[in-house]
Amino acid sequence: MAGSSVKPTPLLKDELDIVIPTIRNLDFLEMWRPFFEQYHLIIVQDGDPSKIIKVPDGFDYELYNRNDINRILGPKASCISFKDSACRCFGYMVSKKKYIYTIDDDCFVAKNPSGELINALEQHIKNLLSPSTPFFFNTLYDPYREGADFVRGYPFSLREGAPTAVSHGLWLNIPDYDAPTQLVKPRERNTRYVDAVLTVPKGTLFPMCGMNLGFNRELIGPAMYFGLMGDGQPIGRYDDMWAGWCMKVICDHMGWGVKTGLPYIWHSKASNPFVNLKKEYKGIYWQEDLIPFFQSAVLPKECVTVQQCYIELAKQVKEKLGKVDPYFIKLADAMVTWIEAWDELNSSGEKSSNSTSK
Amino acid sequence: MAGSSVKPTPLLKDELDIVIPTIRNLDFLEMWRPFFEQYHLIIVQDGDPSKIIKVPDGFDYELYNRNDINRILGPKASCISFKDSACRCFGYMVSKKKYIYTIDDDCFVAKNPSGELINALEQHIKNLLSPSTPFFFNTLYDPYREGADFVRGYPFSLREGAPTAVSHGLWLNIPDYDAPTQLVKPRERNTRYVDAVLTVPKGTLFPMCGMNLGFNRELIGPAMYFGLMGDGQPIGRYDDMWAGWCMKVICDHMGWGVKTGLPYIWHSKASNPFVNLKKEYKGIYWQEDLIPFFQSAVLPKECVTVQQCYIELAKQVKEKLGKVDPYFIKLADAMVTWIEAWDELNSSGEKSSNSTSK
Repeated sequence: MAGSSVKPTPLLKDELDIVIPTIRNLDFLEMWRPFFEQYHLIIVQDGDPSKIIKVPDGFDYELYNRNDINRILGPKASCISFKDSACRCFGYMVSKKKYIYTIDDDCFVAKNPSGELINALEQHIKNLLSPSTPFFFNTLYDPYREGADFVRGYPFSLREGAPTAVSHGLWLNIPDYDAPTQLVKPRERNTRYVDAVLTVPKGTLFPMCGMNLGFNRELIGPAMYFGLMGDGQPIGRYDDMWAGWCMKVICDHMGWGVKTGLPYIWHSKASNPFVNLKKEYKGIYWQEDLIPFFQSAVLPKECVTVQQCYIELAKQVKEKLGKVDPYFIKLADAMVTWIEAWDELNSSGEKSSNSTSK
Repeated sequence: MAGSSVKPTPLLKDELDIVIPTIRNLDFLEMWRPFFEQYHLIIVQDGDPSKIIKVPDGFDYELYNRNDINRILGPKASCISFKDSACRCFGYMVSKKKYIYTIDDDCFVAKNPSGELINALEQHIKNLLSPSTPFFFNTLYDPYREGADFVRGYPFSLREGAPTAVSHGLWLNIPDYDAPTQLVKPRERNTRYVDAVLTVPKGTLFPMCGMNLGFNRELIGPAMYFGLMGDGQPIGRYDDMWAGWCMKVICDHMGWGVKTGLPYIWHSKASNPFVNLKKEYKGIYWQEDLIPFFQSAVLPKECVTVQQCYIELAKQVKEKLGKVDPYFIKLADAMVTWIEAWDELNSSGEKSSNSTSK
């Protein structure tokens, strides 16, 4: 019954990093300045390392390009995608903060129905700091929001909730559609502001979009691998989906919650549906095998850390999805490399300071 | 992609009955007149049969009191609760229509954020006539609503959806809280209008409230038994919950969907929390055994009708919950009686015309 004692939202200034896969325009950071300026930014440049990313004055940031990633990770850099925003997960690895917020550079500040600018980060923090309810659905949505609670019939033993690992935010204006839907509905815009946050129930998969995403890095960080996409890979635009399915299976195993709904950002422009179709088409049919795989994936109870869960999942990916396409054998190996690299960078407790600029 | 061809909502005038457990005030039907007048009402009087329920002119209705129920069902009337709104399920049994909408007499017409009166029944019909998505969560909520669709990463093979069995509507103003929450938060009102309809995922239980509820009687009717509550029973206010848990387990088994969210009604007044506590307190601790029971209940694949599923569930209730309290042995027997009575009234295809008034 959190609504009975509403406290101001902590800012988590020293506990949260903002990870941005690339910045193609200065307007992006200018628009977010009032909300982001007090946080540390980690920018992971997704393409040609010789290009210069300009960051406006006043932001505290570190920037990694491909050369930095290669230097820091050595041969293990192979697990980080090149020329694809999936490279953002390198930022999760080098961060030393408890929380991560990641956002795309075509996402701007949205307005709520009253016309007020939405502080997306503040809502993500609220979502992450309040428990989740993965074991039973509450019909008035997040019972920990002000003005809401558990409804009649909600078991009292479940009202303490579960730790929240992920806060998945949504998008007004351009919806996150696949290429076929983009092609069929070129004019569709999301104008419906749904004033809700809810927990995706245990045992249920959902399509996690990386555009506007917060998570507890200390809890679930090692599962937030965005896979092998982009340059040299047969598939794109499944990076966040892959992370979402792996992460959800692991959260279900660990008893943690995943929230979706608020906050909205304003997604300014649709990516090219023809390019997207080329990236997605293998994913569209592979996915028909991936979903049953993840729906039936069981992790043994001996897996008690996220790393152990993830290595086990990689093993199952290799065994079961390797038959679908050899790409998944390569991906399973990259999943293991990712965990090795994560542990290498995160075991000492020291902060990497190999970034290009500061 | 239903949004691409939006058709006017059919009214289902000849296919839907409105079931009301009792009517304590004339205002109720007057307020709903523009929305209900074209439908047939089934009123099931929940208390003293000698009291007269006044129905305003212009409504087409049939009314059943306890004497009618006893006459029609004979010894099987024992499965219908007395002096409790749980008796409403008798109305589901005597209806011959495909759809049922049931509403409490303290529920009035709500307004949407633009100040327009909400036609709750029309929204229930929309929910029931469009498919559900129980097998995978769609982050933009009901993909069949205008302006929405399946998001990137939603498997294409699941986009045909599943038949919708139940549409669970919500309440503005007085939220549906249990007695302890009512006592702790006497002033809480639900003012948040969440503009969403969503499918409760397969494998997830939720607290189904009978205040504002639509369902496809042809699909799920026999599972909509509201149990033994009220006069002579050790428990109250778990009638709709019980129906919801039984129904959800059966829908999951049959591959059907359950939607929750819109439409809202205006719940005008809170019931007495002290009276409610007395009704609920056994339920509050029994529930801690009920939920694990329903969460782990498995129906054998030989159960291919709702009746078969329900009889099997009654058997499991007797075996497993009978140990919790002898009440559940009595309830399990009543579940079987309910199905026998349902089949008796519904096998001939003839409409019962034993009602008191018309």
